[in-house]
Amino acid sequence: LLQERGLIAGDGIGREVVPAGRRALEALPASVGLKFDFVNLDAGFETFERTGAALPNVTLETLKTECDGALFGAVGSPTHAVKGYSSPIVALRKKLSLYANVRPVKTVRSNPRRIDMVIVRENTEDLYVKEERTFDAEDGSGKVAEAIKRITERASFRIASMAGEIAVRRHKVRQASGAGSAREPTVTITHKSNVLSQTDGLFRTTANVALANYPVTVEEQIVDSMVYKLFRQPETYDVIVAPNLYGDLLSDGAAALVGSLGLVPSANVGDSFVMGEPCHGSAPDIMGQNIANPVATLRSTALMLEFMNEEEAAAKLYTAIDANLEEGKILSPDLGGKAKTDEVVEDILKRL
Amino acid sequence: LLQERGLIAGDGIGREVVPAGRRALEALPASVGLKFDFVNLDAGFETFERTGAALPNVTLETLKTECDGALFGAVGSPTHAVKGYSSPIVALRKKLSLYANVRPVKTVRSNPRRIDMVIVRENTEDLYVKEERTFDAEDGSGKVAEAIKRITERASFRIASMAGEIAVRRHKVRQASGAGSAREPTVTITHKSNVLSQTDGLFRTTANVALANYPVTVEEQIVDSMVYKLFRQPETYDVIVAPNLYGDLLSDGAAALVGSLGLVPSANVGDSFVMGEPCHGSAPDIMGQNIANPVATLRSTALMLEFMNEEEAAAKLYTAIDANLEEGKILSPDLGGKAKTDEVVEDILKRL
Ligand SMILES: CC(C)[C@H](C(=O)O)[C@@H](O)C(=O)O
Ligand SMILES: CC(C)[C@H](C(=O)O)[C@@H](O)C(=O)O
Repeated sequence: LLQERGLIAGDGIGREVVPAGRRALEALPASVGLKFDFVNLDAGFETFERTGAALPNVTLETLKTECDGALFGAVGSPTHAVKGYSSPIVALRKKLSLYANVRPVKTVRSNPRRIDMVIVRENTEDLYVKEERTFDAEDGSGKVAEAIKRITERASFRIASMAGEIAVRRHKVRQASGAGSAREPTVTITHKSNVLSQTDGLFRTTANVALANYPVTVEEQIVDSMVYKLFRQPETYDVIVAPNLYGDLLSDGAAALVGSLGLVPSANVGDSFVMGEPCHGSAPDIMGQNIANPVATLRSTALMLEFMNEEEAAAKLYTAIDANLEEGKILSPDLGGKAKTDEVVEDILKRL
Repeated sequence: LLQERGLIAGDGIGREVVPAGRRALEALPASVGLKFDFVNLDAGFETFERTGAALPNVTLETLKTECDGALFGAVGSPTHAVKGYSSPIVALRKKLSLYANVRPVKTVRSNPRRIDMVIVRENTEDLYVKEERTFDAEDGSGKVAEAIKRITERASFRIASMAGEIAVRRHKVRQASGAGSAREPTVTITHKSNVLSQTDGLFRTTANVALANYPVTVEEQIVDSMVYKLFRQPETYDVIVAPNLYGDLLSDGAAALVGSLGLVPSANVGDSFVMGEPCHGSAPDIMGQNIANPVATLRSTALMLEFMNEEEAAAKLYTAIDANLEEGKILSPDLGGKAKTDEVVEDILKRL
């Protein structure tokens, strides 16, 4: 079976880490029975400057008609407002109906902190609908800008159901491995319904309804307390489900707990398409130096495989990555190491 | 000069910590030349259940006509949506035009981490305008709820100017004390203009314009990275200015860094009124046990004095609190101690 993958390197270190993901897919042992074909696609700020479009139509069409999955690197944000430019990742998520952004945050075994959580972020609505307008204040006091935060029952139900499924799946894996089988599968619903009673209230109510269908413990946490607790007692969380914007902030916060953004993967998941994406940005300060940490992208590649039900291939890749980190000898500079991007990739691939 | 202070204890531990603030004001040495009169005012969930109004008119009117400052404790959030109830603190901030929420986060001297930052949060707009509506999706897929996020040039200018003033004032204090005079006064503007180009774009642009009037270094940080950096390198921040919601989340995050929410104060500041408010909530799990940490409220009391230009009185109170924490003998349970609320208060007051 030949599987077609889109590779969208984007800007900055995206161009250094996406090739690592490709190499990992090519290096998977024949025993897993997967063969991939790749197509390189443009998107990002450099593409915008060159072509006038941050997300060219051909990129979108190729993904839609020829690919069943993709890897996305990172795109740069211009330092000043640039007319007509808007980040292509948000558009990709929406146009490919990738309604869930799944971000596992986990420490390796030798870490004294036992963090092992997944943030399940709604990926299509909330303030990310980007419906904004600007007008002059009636009293002459200057400009006023408004944005719509939209929460739907449909998207809230869908994302909470995915959180429920992930919690159940994780629990099964824990039980199978004999590790932590005592831990109950738990989903924590995050919201700010004490202020936003209708929008976040709808998210809260709907998530509770959806999660009643799963054998999981359901908890709630107001988002500001969630940020606090994320830092004070991260070990206690299993699956966290959140509307788009809170999910964005919480996952960066969780990433800080495990030492480096360079370790944290994500998958943008839809019903028939998955796009892996490292949580880090384009990091212009270190681009071109071959020192970017490829782990976030390699983990995103494994996550993509996992959500395409290629669990054996995913497990092999995760195991190789963990072995590299556990050994702790060939690490990139963000982890205190001296290895180049390529050296880390090679060390991981040879463990496959 | 007799100064009238409103005391709004609210719910839960609010009723245990607000009296501590009152005692501190009464215990200030005569040399500072302040004399206070107090009036107890109702607000909160218990008030709502009893009277049908979470913020009775008489509370608002008394604050407006008789008081020049107030201390607010905390109010409970009902665990389930309750019709007609909405948190009175948001209303108070808006109705008293307390446009800035100032939250200093600082470690004591003996702490190896040297965190000393102030989060200056816009306090009147953003999603806190609470303009929401709910309707049925056209395609029959269920309910849709929308909220308005409103950012104005006027409020953004005002809050950034306050951030600039605070940065300058802090720098003067550092220079006077000989400590850290090498550190440049810096204001970090936080926003998400890569997604919200109009609303957060307006905040960003306006804040830059306002801060150009101050002798401070101006930096910018996208809010998700800000959460990440807050946890990775909190020592590098001086003053952070943010729209309402981001400020809410960032200040809880910052509080996690200093060990306990029970340490972190805030002041709601307007042109002619200041309301001190601990950052913690009503903590129903520990209420009535006399173990709540009074430090956040005592620091909020000092902060209130500071913003009323009673700097000598404020300094005395801060010094007494720091001395208690540095000694580390009489601490509440959240800090690993065994002392009761009253014992902590007494230890601090005797140092005044
Ligand atoms: C680049 C930006 C638009 C994006 C987001 O806000 O979703 C990023 O922060 C992320 O988390 O993938
Ligand atoms: C209680 C709640 C409405 C409030 C807020 O969101 O502002 C609180 O979290 C705070 O930070 O003071």
